[in-house]
Amino acid sequence: MTPETTALPVKDRFDLPPGMVYLDGNSLGPLPRAVPARLAEMVRDEWGAHLIKGWNVDDWMGQPARVGDRVGRLIGAPAGSVTMGDTLSVKVYQALSAALQMRPDRKVILTDSGNFPSDIYMAEGLIRHLGAGHALRIVAPEEVAQAMTDEVAVAMITQVDYRSGRMHDMGDVTAAAQAAGVVMLWDLAHSAGAVPVDLAGSGCEFAVGCTYKYLNGGPGAPAFIYVRPDLVDTIDPVLSGWLGHERPFDFDLSYTPAPGVERMRVGTPPVLQLTALDAALDVWDGVDMADLRRRSIALSELFIAQVEVRCPGLRLASPRDPAARGTQVSFASDNSYAMMQALIARDVVGDFRAPDLMRFGFTPLYLDEGDIHRAVDVLTDVIDNRLWDDPAYLQKSRVT
Amino acid sequence: MTPETTALPVKDRFDLPPGMVYLDGNSLGPLPRAVPARLAEMVRDEWGAHLIKGWNVDDWMGQPARVGDRVGRLIGAPAGSVTMGDTLSVKVYQALSAALQMRPDRKVILTDSGNFPSDIYMAEGLIRHLGAGHALRIVAPEEVAQAMTDEVAVAMITQVDYRSGRMHDMGDVTAAAQAAGVVMLWDLAHSAGAVPVDLAGSGCEFAVGCTYKYLNGGPGAPAFIYVRPDLVDTIDPVLSGWLGHERPFDFDLSYTPAPGVERMRVGTPPVLQLTALDAALDVWDGVDMADLRRRSIALSELFIAQVEVRCPGLRLASPRDPAARGTQVSFASDNSYAMMQALIARDVVGDFRAPDLMRFGFTPLYLDEGDIHRAVDVLTDVIDNRLWDDPAYLQKSRVT
Repeated sequence: MTPETTALPVKDRFDLPPGMVYLDGNSLGPLPRAVPARLAEMVRDEWGAHLIKGWNVDDWMGQPARVGDRVGRLIGAPAGSVTMGDTLSVKVYQALSAALQMRPDRKVILTDSGNFPSDIYMAEGLIRHLGAGHALRIVAPEEVAQAMTDEVAVAMITQVDYRSGRMHDMGDVTAAAQAAGVVMLWDLAHSAGAVPVDLAGSGCEFAVGCTYKYLNGGPGAPAFIYVRPDLVDTIDPVLSGWLGHERPFDFDLSYTPAPGVERMRVGTPPVLQLTALDAALDVWDGVDMADLRRRSIALSELFIAQVEVRCPGLRLASPRDPAARGTQVSFASDNSYAMMQALIARDVVGDFRAPDLMRFGFTPLYLDEGDIHRAVDVLTDVIDNRLWDDPAYLQKSRVT
Repeated sequence: MTPETTALPVKDRFDLPPGMVYLDGNSLGPLPRAVPARLAEMVRDEWGAHLIKGWNVDDWMGQPARVGDRVGRLIGAPAGSVTMGDTLSVKVYQALSAALQMRPDRKVILTDSGNFPSDIYMAEGLIRHLGAGHALRIVAPEEVAQAMTDEVAVAMITQVDYRSGRMHDMGDVTAAAQAAGVVMLWDLAHSAGAVPVDLAGSGCEFAVGCTYKYLNGGPGAPAFIYVRPDLVDTIDPVLSGWLGHERPFDFDLSYTPAPGVERMRVGTPPVLQLTALDAALDVWDGVDMADLRRRSIALSELFIAQVEVRCPGLRLASPRDPAARGTQVSFASDNSYAMMQALIARDVVGDFRAPDLMRFGFTPLYLDEGDIHRAVDVLTDVIDNRLWDDPAYLQKSRVT
């Protein structure tokens, strides 16, 4: 691929601030152009005009399944296997609980130290309250496959490390789990919309993820959950809310789970957030995930090569092999926090992660080579001229 | 109060379809006029322009507490005792789990058969998975106070019955609970914004509710949870998500709960939904809850009196004493479903609840006597001319 072809022809589907190089889609995706009009229309013509009838005539009730299928197509999940709602933390809790049910004779939840803390916190809360002798075991990321023993009920692994971008091989890890009788739960927070994912092909039992990063659903966009279709009807949902009931509008006094992944629904769906997400997913029309991945690697390889030449004081804190990374690249230094503030003051937006990382996300949805060169130019200027050490300069990083 | 003064001077704060009499605010509140512009502004000027910086510069992170305080003022909760997020079902689960922790020697969750089914389903899921011998006991609403025995850990009661509008006396029931050492959890789904609530005065330990009914936050608006301030720091949250952590951005590998009600937060807040709700709460500026209650009773008393004179075949299915009702009034008949369809076809919008109820909600925020007279005129026409039995007529109730 020549550099000129690295950008996908969809950058104009986003409404980015002029002059901004946005390298933080791994934290919050930018605003897709289709969202404001679609959301305004929903508010005015559905909520405003149809009021309560919107649940039927605008099929708000079917939104979690309909949007779930659109997300599913980006992560290799068959139609009807994904539903939307709640937050990623709540979906982790549901999936973990279901996984523990499947292995009543095993007591360990396995995860790795590169997992996002909230997943670990949710596991802690679950096992502390279950009171059935469960334990959480946290190993180094490279030890996950070997740690799949017959004590382990479920492996809860985030595919792409939120700090370094280090990426697990989903097929290999799932195969190791299955060889040991371990239920596999993938967190795709930094994978969905970032790298090709083949959930069905991996054979994993569960996957969860969020939609406000690479799926650009906006702050607080709902989470998703995938359950392997052959298992879902055996699950007794711990969060057995009425919208996961087989017949919610019968208002029975006891719970009967709905068939399929609908049983993983809990309460009323967040219709405004789901509408924004639904419009945001239009960005993906015509985008091929393998093509996206090739372009993403080209952008991040260009960034790494340029930074290592022009900013030799920074240390690459991500895997050098692009096949072992998601879309993020992190560099470490003693002054990363201040450097990132100085970058942001110049509209090159990444983020800082403790203790010493500058984190940059690369998606060809709205980034091209020109953006990479601009980012490296500014980073070089910040370092060479010690702008990160200039309080007057940093003041500008505050939005006023 | 004379009839002319029944309406509150805030009807123009809502954008209701012309000619519609909307008596279903107990299911989904109508669109407040302030919402579309405020939401569009947030999407464009916060998400679109500030992107990831919105969490700080627009204080999205503080939204659950800020909006929680605004809701708290409508339900008698002190500042800092309410937070927003998730769905009512999830908040029920959190509160129930916390309540069971407080009474480890007791095994019964008490509720009544007038409770909304999702609350009961969530309790079922919790106790089925806890595996510590807990049981759910469902009694008739009028037996709740007597059922507060020393086996009962927590009473989970919805103050206003979703079908009939029958209302528990919060002070009396809470006092009965406390006399028996029972933790009191109130579901305020049909109370918040509908009737005066004095949470602090009641002394109850927990309260939860939704905001898409009388608080007009829109479909899927987030839920709230109140925890009595002297207790909250003793709670070990079962859904221990990172935004309930004391220092979420330290990304520690183990959970430490935040001080206060912040520990009841779980994952990322739904910023778009919270923005819509925040704008919707402007409706309440200058509204006195006692005044609202007097006017609401005047409207519902007028409706009942007129219906009983003009539609003698209908049977009042709500308490006759207005002090024993929330804002809803239900009438039963053999043809309630078809009758409600015919009403909706004429833009008089209530709803049907199985097996035989037509349900009407009365809020003086956007209803006045003229609306009541129009609703009764149409209902009389529907019954006297058997419009409910005319398929061609009912066809009109479909929005196209």
